[in-house]
Amino acid sequence: MVVSHPEKTRITVDIYGRSYTIIGEEQAHHVRMVASLVDQKMREIHDSNSSLDTNKLAVLTAVNTMNDYLKLKEEYTELLGSIKQKEEQEKND
Amino acid sequence: MVVSHPEKTRITVDIYGRSYTIIGEEQAHHVRMVASLVDQKMREIHDSNSSLDTNKLAVLTAVNTMNDYLKLKEEYTELLGSIKQKEEQEKND
Repeated sequence: MVVSHPEKTRITVDIYGRSYTIIGEEQAHHVRMVASLVDQKMREIHDSNSSLDTNKLAVLTAVNTMNDYLKLKEEYTELLGSIKQKEEQEKND
Repeated sequence: MVVSHPEKTRITVDIYGRSYTIIGEEQAHHVRMVASLVDQKMREIHDSNSSLDTNKLAVLTAVNTMNDYLKLKEEYTELLGSIKQKEEQEKND
């Protein structure tokens, strides 16, 4: 998903009360789901710390999501590693 | 990673010129890596669309990260599915 390719699909979504035009190759329903998850995460962080301004809220949402991403990537890499290990064992059996 | 638990570790990071206190159970080096990746993503989006204000930039960074997360989750689920399928086949052989 990129934010600047005029030849691609443009989808307008609402996140935390502001309008965003998302430009990319993703399907509309996918972009709306992503936007809705970001909106939801921002509201969750706001609920636990209502003094944060929107800017900080959005950055912390990105930080939280990046953290989730890295954790999942670690699990993914471990899973791939265990598959390879199993394949090696089967070859040697 | 949460943003409001006074009893947990507090780490201050700099993202896109602003200071953030991240409170959670993660190790300092991990939090700093996450913050640096978010900072980098914000700068990348800024480079491709310099007219965006910091607020929109932060939200679009969250949107991009969420999109990456969902794609990885899909790949992870597919990988798990293929492992299960292989195990079923081995049982039936």
